[in-house]
Amino acid sequence: MLDIVESHRCFGGTQAVYKHSSSTVSMPMKFSVFLPPQAASRKVPVLFYLAGLTCTEETFPIKAGAQRYAAEHGIALIAPDTSPRETGIPWENSSWEFGTGAGFYVDATESPWSKHFRMYSYVRDELRRLAIEHFPIDGTKIGIFGHSMGGHGALILALRNPHIYKSVSAFAPIAAPMRCDWGQGAFAGYLGRFRDTWKQYDASVLMQTMHSPFPTGILIDQGLDDKFLTDKQLNPEMFEEACLSAKQPLTLRRHEGYDHGYYFISTFMADHIAHHAKILNGSGAEN
Amino acid sequence: MLDIVESHRCFGGTQAVYKHSSSTVSMPMKFSVFLPPQAASRKVPVLFYLAGLTCTEETFPIKAGAQRYAAEHGIALIAPDTSPRETGIPWENSSWEFGTGAGFYVDATESPWSKHFRMYSYVRDELRRLAIEHFPIDGTKIGIFGHSMGGHGALILALRNPHIYKSVSAFAPIAAPMRCDWGQGAFAGYLGRFRDTWKQYDASVLMQTMHSPFPTGILIDQGLDDKFLTDKQLNPEMFEEACLSAKQPLTLRRHEGYDHGYYFISTFMADHIAHHAKILNGSGAEN
Repeated sequence: MLDIVESHRCFGGTQAVYKHSSSTVSMPMKFSVFLPPQAASRKVPVLFYLAGLTCTEETFPIKAGAQRYAAEHGIALIAPDTSPRETGIPWENSSWEFGTGAGFYVDATESPWSKHFRMYSYVRDELRRLAIEHFPIDGTKIGIFGHSMGGHGALILALRNPHIYKSVSAFAPIAAPMRCDWGQGAFAGYLGRFRDTWKQYDASVLMQTMHSPFPTGILIDQGLDDKFLTDKQLNPEMFEEACLSAKQPLTLRRHEGYDHGYYFISTFMADHIAHHAKILNGSGAEN
Repeated sequence: MLDIVESHRCFGGTQAVYKHSSSTVSMPMKFSVFLPPQAASRKVPVLFYLAGLTCTEETFPIKAGAQRYAAEHGIALIAPDTSPRETGIPWENSSWEFGTGAGFYVDATESPWSKHFRMYSYVRDELRRLAIEHFPIDGTKIGIFGHSMGGHGALILALRNPHIYKSVSAFAPIAAPMRCDWGQGAFAGYLGRFRDTWKQYDASVLMQTMHSPFPTGILIDQGLDDKFLTDKQLNPEMFEEACLSAKQPLTLRRHEGYDHGYYFISTFMADHIAHHAKILNGSGAEN
């Protein structure tokens, strides 16, 4: 059952927030949904957006400026929260890089996180099924994208599930989490010390072991004044190298002067929605 | 002197926040500036945006999605904070409708507000001079717009100063403040009980007493699911009637289903920037 938290008319469609009791994470979860005007008369493709550290289900609809393009292309947008909240686990709020707001889109195996921090399955299975059941969404036309931690999430979900996700893109993703502080800290906490179990959640490692390339290519935008790029948290060049070895078509664009924030994301949002629309709609804009 | 608080590349231009010591309000003030790519090589027109109750200088750049259109038309965007803050006046924070975040774009005459709450002169004189002095802005090509309390501010500033402001528009403005609770409360507090002094700050009253119409017309968008419209705080029909009597060209668009928030504003932002650009640039889009 879905409870509506708020709803606003926006670009001829509807921007809303819903709350539900999640069986996957055993907690209440919130997510935002933009339904374009076309959804009033037919089923539309859907694009899931995964946000970065500290964000919520509202960050994307408020800051990214995506609704205009989604309305133009007739695509729904769904953005979940970035983790369960108020689980009662001690220290869940003690760091912005781990715990609340930092689910890292993995299914935790380590106690006490394993009961609630199961964002991989939550996004892939429960949220997708809810979306198809409750909204006029075509479950055969699904794309996924995200930012930073959420760019990592989008890449691993798409690479491991190309039968579900037909298109993928990312803004400044954590592209090789096993080789940066953020990823190592999160994976050790959620998955334990045995690094072999981490590999299923590292896009650069997954790319090295894939049997065939992701069929519709991958689009990534990266700002060159991004302090987390300088801090070696993102490592797009490692993913680029893995794609090259795997013969994976990749469009990795580096942008002079742009940083890690939503002013960067909003600048290139039109290109990302167009990338997904071309694949999901089988053409460009449609109305 | 201006101190830069933050700066981000955005749509080929720059979105920044500045802080300065204001002589008009005798307090530090912050404002945001978007410079379009065209400002790198020449002076550009500027559009001032006045925000509504509780907002800051960041609300507009984060939520309105205006940078894309400003970049297309080659127009700078400047948004001040909505009042001085931390003035030390007792109870300045006790209401969201008065005091902090609620300057109402008047020059207060009543103690203790009169020393600091002088947003009318701050916007018209000090902020404008700062903008022209510090940025590549053409001081002969200035427009103004705003939302709710800021829509009221934009209307009164333009109607009283058509030699300064060449274009004006508003989203859901408080269009007849002397005839609504918000306006009566604010004006009584800032201006005292003598209602004749209020008239200079009421767009509907000003319209009745103008010698000639505002030359370039007025654009207003209003959502019909706006709870403050239902609450009789906005009263666009009173302004519409005043415009009709004064033969003032007015485009007042009423939009089914839209509410008072930034999802409404972002939907119609392109039209507003285009309205100002046509007047300030003397044509449509330019690059």
